[in-house]
Amino acid sequence: MKISIIGAGSMAFSAALIKDLALTKSISGSKVTLMDISEERLNAAFNIARRYAKEVGSDLVIEKTLDVVEAIRGSDFVINVAFAGGYHNLELMIETAEKHGYYRGIDATDWNMVNNYNIYTCYKQYQIALNIARTMEEYAPDGWLLQVANPLLEVTTMLLRKTRVKVVGFCHGFHGYAELARVCGLDPDKLEFQVAGLNHDIWLTSLTQDGEDAYRYIDEWLEKDAENFWKTYILDLWEEQLSRAAADMYRRYGLYPIGDTCRSGTWVYHKDLKTKQRWYGPIGGVDSEIGWIIRRLRYRSQLERFYRMANDPTVSVSRELGLTRSGEQFVDFIDSVTNGVERRLILNVRNNGVIPGIPADVAVEVPVYVSKETLRPEPIKNLPSSVVKFALIPRWERMEWALEAFDALSEGGKQAYREALVNILLADPRTSSLEQAISTVDALLKLPYYRDDE
Amino acid sequence: MKISIIGAGSMAFSAALIKDLALTKSISGSKVTLMDISEERLNAAFNIARRYAKEVGSDLVIEKTLDVVEAIRGSDFVINVAFAGGYHNLELMIETAEKHGYYRGIDATDWNMVNNYNIYTCYKQYQIALNIARTMEEYAPDGWLLQVANPLLEVTTMLLRKTRVKVVGFCHGFHGYAELARVCGLDPDKLEFQVAGLNHDIWLTSLTQDGEDAYRYIDEWLEKDAENFWKTYILDLWEEQLSRAAADMYRRYGLYPIGDTCRSGTWVYHKDLKTKQRWYGPIGGVDSEIGWIIRRLRYRSQLERFYRMANDPTVSVSRELGLTRSGEQFVDFIDSVTNGVERRLILNVRNNGVIPGIPADVAVEVPVYVSKETLRPEPIKNLPSSVVKFALIPRWERMEWALEAFDALSEGGKQAYREALVNILLADPRTSSLEQAISTVDALLKLPYYRDDE
Repeated sequence: MKISIIGAGSMAFSAALIKDLALTKSISGSKVTLMDISEERLNAAFNIARRYAKEVGSDLVIEKTLDVVEAIRGSDFVINVAFAGGYHNLELMIETAEKHGYYRGIDATDWNMVNNYNIYTCYKQYQIALNIARTMEEYAPDGWLLQVANPLLEVTTMLLRKTRVKVVGFCHGFHGYAELARVCGLDPDKLEFQVAGLNHDIWLTSLTQDGEDAYRYIDEWLEKDAENFWKTYILDLWEEQLSRAAADMYRRYGLYPIGDTCRSGTWVYHKDLKTKQRWYGPIGGVDSEIGWIIRRLRYRSQLERFYRMANDPTVSVSRELGLTRSGEQFVDFIDSVTNGVERRLILNVRNNGVIPGIPADVAVEVPVYVSKETLRPEPIKNLPSSVVKFALIPRWERMEWALEAFDALSEGGKQAYREALVNILLADPRTSSLEQAISTVDALLKLPYYRDDE
Repeated sequence: MKISIIGAGSMAFSAALIKDLALTKSISGSKVTLMDISEERLNAAFNIARRYAKEVGSDLVIEKTLDVVEAIRGSDFVINVAFAGGYHNLELMIETAEKHGYYRGIDATDWNMVNNYNIYTCYKQYQIALNIARTMEEYAPDGWLLQVANPLLEVTTMLLRKTRVKVVGFCHGFHGYAELARVCGLDPDKLEFQVAGLNHDIWLTSLTQDGEDAYRYIDEWLEKDAENFWKTYILDLWEEQLSRAAADMYRRYGLYPIGDTCRSGTWVYHKDLKTKQRWYGPIGGVDSEIGWIIRRLRYRSQLERFYRMANDPTVSVSRELGLTRSGEQFVDFIDSVTNGVERRLILNVRNNGVIPGIPADVAVEVPVYVSKETLRPEPIKNLPSSVVKFALIPRWERMEWALEAFDALSEGGKQAYREALVNILLADPRTSSLEQAISTVDALLKLPYYRDDE
């Protein structure tokens, strides 16, 4: 079996994946090909991966390549984690848009306030994914594409619509249910849960313990303890699950938002830093300007740690990375497909009516039973129309705009892309005039991210 | 044959309808029942209708009633033009919302800046239409419901979804194509045109003369004459078809917007009076505060004229109203259904895939061939995805919100309605805080329009 990882220079991710692969007996002996366009990062990731496998006694065959076709050729599973341009370019885009009046960048929008990736302005993310899928159609036509890179909703839907490749989208955000359970005094491992929605816009449709509704424990926590919790506890990055905003969304839309969903909602939680702080505590959430700086610093020190590991052969990689599985679902998916061990995973798959009110050809994030080549989505128990109409449809709409912009670029070139982006901004609450929209888009399109390709 | 008109006290409308009915030979001898809840208005409309029919020698049997069941019982066609609350209540709602920071009221929104009716806050419009349809299910199960009252998109879709009644939505806005043709030097009668979209959000998908594309004449007008036209001509109410905004929408979305569509677009044309004036001329369009005053004055003098006619038996009603048909399509529809004379009409009917990208169970406004009981929508020639994604989906989304709010009221009462309206406002660009949204909705729900029913 061959597994290839595109964008493997994303080291934190590669490390988690290699751990899971090396620690899973049922896929021992498989070939794992790491691919990245940065030789330096690729070498570091390769070094860490090889040493980890060796230290834990795994017989994975780990290879590396700078060539995407070579990586994909004959793969049974292709994992796409590539992030074109990286954080620096993203930061430039946000800064440029903020100068034109678009706080946290033009991609920040209702139900997508998440700004560690963009949805409208990241055409390279679409191109990379499409290129991988087209390459697979030719060189690995029976392989599965495990899409991980953001924007996951947009890319997965685009691939489902445009290509014949078997694609599944992966996100670990659903684990937020466990964080919520713990703060309510529950043991997550004793709970049954169901989430449903669109990626980064998923909702807790059911939570039970021993067959009984456990939502009431959340209600109790909100009633008795939450106010004191918010007053005394400083929410760290990625703890938005426990924020006032999440609780307010629950009150307003009827279900608890899960994971990255809590980072979004409408502008009412995000208008400016002060507003973000009101709803997310002193940091203002991971997507505020404060959160962004903290995140960049932590990311940098994480990267330094990986390079130190790679450059110092005396370090025990397995001690550094640990011997427990990562909680990511890729290896479970690979095992279920390969060995037919049925598992219930939270995946992004073609809707096909699982969520009524959302078109059939959109990727939805729901529990899916996976066994061999069969993916069987679980029926959704209780998704109120208020969630569908006020939270899912608006996010779906913006996905359609994002894909429309990418199609405009593909079919009409940069001028058509520019016009689509302006049209998107004309529906943005921060837009005061046509001139503002046009000058913002023009300024963005002059950034290095766009110049590279001219 | 029996035709009933619900809300017949809307005199300008009744007069147009009575004219068309009285002047159409193929339906002579039919019974026409006028119904309204205002006895004074009903009597005036009845008086004018009877005299008109008599003067032109029509043998229509005209009756009146204050009882909706009596009006509907046994009807072949029921025409709903009722507008609950009237302009005074609408004005109060707009004033109240403006005090809370919502310029032109909370129902003013992207792709629905039209403010002579509301979409979210007009639950009585939904109740009236639903009541008519339910009454028809019992007392006129084979009858057609001709829905005219706004919000047409919302009400027609709701009736298609919730009832078994044969419903068709009517709007005369599509005639805007003729106004556009004339300013471009074309004779509308020599043109073939096709429009498609959602009510008040329709687009000129095709314009031909002798089989050849006539869009080029529009392009020529825009290039050579439009700028001078806008500089020298003051657009009157209802002339938004010829506005800079309409031309800009054509440039941005790829098709010319038609009729009331030109009154909408996004906030970029509507942010404040100054912005509206930039795009619609000195009045700022029929939906600006200036347009609103002019409209109210004209409406009042029109009403006075009708009352004078009604109260002065020496006036010749047929001379006052004229002897030409109104341009409304109801009587053509009635004749085509009754007598099987096939006609191509612009109607609001169940989508069923006519417009891809819009769900099947939404009312779309498209050309429809009508003959007896068969309604056959014309295939749409060319509706670019930019129009669907940037102009139709946003309007459709707001329709879903409006219907969600009405469902909340029907199923959960006023508290649920209040919460739905707050959720709608949380996605409004004018909302700065949760408190603003809540206090606005609370202030609105205290107005007489809502108090009446408690």
